[in-house]
Amino acid sequence: MAPITNGRVIFNAVPQDFPIPGETTVYDTTQTIDLDKVPLNGGLLIKVLVLSVDPYMRGRLRAPEVKSYMPAFVLGKPLMGGGIGVVVRSEVAGVEAGSHVRGLLAHQEYVIAPNLAMLEIIERDPKLHWSVYIGPAGMIGETAYMGWREYSRAKKEEVAFVSTGAGGVGSMVIQIAKQDGLKVIASAGSDEKVRFMKEIGADVAFNYKTTDVREMLAKEGPIDIYWDNVGGSTLDAAMEFANNHSRFIECGQISGYNQGYQPMSNPSFIVSKSMSIHGFLVSNLRPKYSTAFRAEVWPKLVSGEFKFKEDVTHGLQRLGEVILAVQKGTNTGKAIVVVAEE
Amino acid sequence: MAPITNGRVIFNAVPQDFPIPGETTVYDTTQTIDLDKVPLNGGLLIKVLVLSVDPYMRGRLRAPEVKSYMPAFVLGKPLMGGGIGVVVRSEVAGVEAGSHVRGLLAHQEYVIAPNLAMLEIIERDPKLHWSVYIGPAGMIGETAYMGWREYSRAKKEEVAFVSTGAGGVGSMVIQIAKQDGLKVIASAGSDEKVRFMKEIGADVAFNYKTTDVREMLAKEGPIDIYWDNVGGSTLDAAMEFANNHSRFIECGQISGYNQGYQPMSNPSFIVSKSMSIHGFLVSNLRPKYSTAFRAEVWPKLVSGEFKFKEDVTHGLQRLGEVILAVQKGTNTGKAIVVVAEE
Repeated sequence: MAPITNGRVIFNAVPQDFPIPGETTVYDTTQTIDLDKVPLNGGLLIKVLVLSVDPYMRGRLRAPEVKSYMPAFVLGKPLMGGGIGVVVRSEVAGVEAGSHVRGLLAHQEYVIAPNLAMLEIIERDPKLHWSVYIGPAGMIGETAYMGWREYSRAKKEEVAFVSTGAGGVGSMVIQIAKQDGLKVIASAGSDEKVRFMKEIGADVAFNYKTTDVREMLAKEGPIDIYWDNVGGSTLDAAMEFANNHSRFIECGQISGYNQGYQPMSNPSFIVSKSMSIHGFLVSNLRPKYSTAFRAEVWPKLVSGEFKFKEDVTHGLQRLGEVILAVQKGTNTGKAIVVVAEE
Repeated sequence: MAPITNGRVIFNAVPQDFPIPGETTVYDTTQTIDLDKVPLNGGLLIKVLVLSVDPYMRGRLRAPEVKSYMPAFVLGKPLMGGGIGVVVRSEVAGVEAGSHVRGLLAHQEYVIAPNLAMLEIIERDPKLHWSVYIGPAGMIGETAYMGWREYSRAKKEEVAFVSTGAGGVGSMVIQIAKQDGLKVIASAGSDEKVRFMKEIGADVAFNYKTTDVREMLAKEGPIDIYWDNVGGSTLDAAMEFANNHSRFIECGQISGYNQGYQPMSNPSFIVSKSMSIHGFLVSNLRPKYSTAFRAEVWPKLVSGEFKFKEDVTHGLQRLGEVILAVQKGTNTGKAIVVVAEE
């Protein structure tokens, strides 16, 4: 077979604020690959099927000299993120062509992996699409489940507030909190998202663009747990209407990712309310919770007890648009890019 | 015996910023008490010996409509705080005159307690003055020991930063952290305090009024644990120079008590560094740690292995001055008011 184009999404320029498709990232078609002959040097040739686009990726679109918890993407090289691919050729013992792998994959149509160190072989339930395994059955669901189990110290009848409750992580948090017997208040940025949050069980769901967060929490709170995906003034409001001994789980602060972080208005609440505030990386919680996550969450996704919504875009060339949509919140549900069908 | 004056420190006016002796609080001598005849109604007559004056008391000198974790002091009534007294007369079964009691005592020379509900009978080691039992062997030491044990997750060789390291709580935290094998950086506001922090084992001790906190932490950090007694710009600096997975123990934020709280400049570090930040009340930790505290800390205070410094003022009429000194940091060591000798 003759060489074919290996489309790639390249990190082209550090964004000033929002990441612009075609400027921050460019879709590049200059590389070709011969699927039959490309040397694998003992590794795997993978055809990428689905990629996950997540809010945290904004943090990697930065200048290399800025330190953070994940390395910056490399200018001139492809982005990478959670994905699933199918093995086209394998020189790894025990891995057959046709097997599926999950892990951090470069944003290109075909990837050569030196080994399985950063990947895992994965099988799917016939009822679930592969995309679910990079969403609620993957890192997204793990983040919700493991963060909640480790830090919420949830008790029945308590009140939890979840921001970006219609997103991949937020929608799972709502359902886990309801399963634990809490009252759940959830916010998002459109009426369509509000409807979805009600569908999945939120007791109170509101559009923060048309309803004041403070007024809503004054009425429906005080809160015992806040799952924060947004930071900024929503975090301030949550602290103001938090109970003593409240637990705040800092999953993200997207309000600051593109236009700078606001300060926290009143950190004295941490002392006066005996609060606990936790940032975390899901990778550190996996050793403790992976088995429980699969046992508890996967069957509920298969049975439909846990619901999820995907916002699916077809074509790797559109990944830059999806990155922007996720930062602006114009997607509804977990953002997925389908790169190829099997 | 004829009635005698029962001096009292009355909450007279809500302070605008710093609490002014004679204005915020007044020493009142209008009440008399007949020690032989005053009816006890089944309770105890206590002669107050020593009182503890602590930073947190500023939070109780507020208008009653402002909610916080401890009730406001009542305008026109005496203040109260940790203290020790001797029983003069008792109508409580099993409590003899001459016994000593510890607990929250009204700021007056003689107190009638209805029962032992809020007090405990206490005995002292002959080597230690009663004041130690409201300092490092009391609530102050408990705060340091229990907060550290619950939240520090300290590991040998880690780096801890302690603000107000020459104060009652801070000086105990330094010594417990050194005992646990950590490198300790400590700050305070005078050269005399810096000398004391070095005496008790701080590896690095500095005067924040003459040395920039950020420069010092850039040189001696990054830090894994921050014991915060001050908040404000020191808390910001600690977050900036904190390691991933750092633990912040929010014991107090005195920089904001009198002149308003500063915002936290960059709360995004909580996410990006996977930080945990904990406020706490020592009363909630006592059930778990009281036995260990007495077993571990009291013998080290008796033997002199744990050192402490007291700033002793004689006379209840001077308590208002001591409250101000503690808020301004002009005391060195744990502030104690000796109300009476036995």
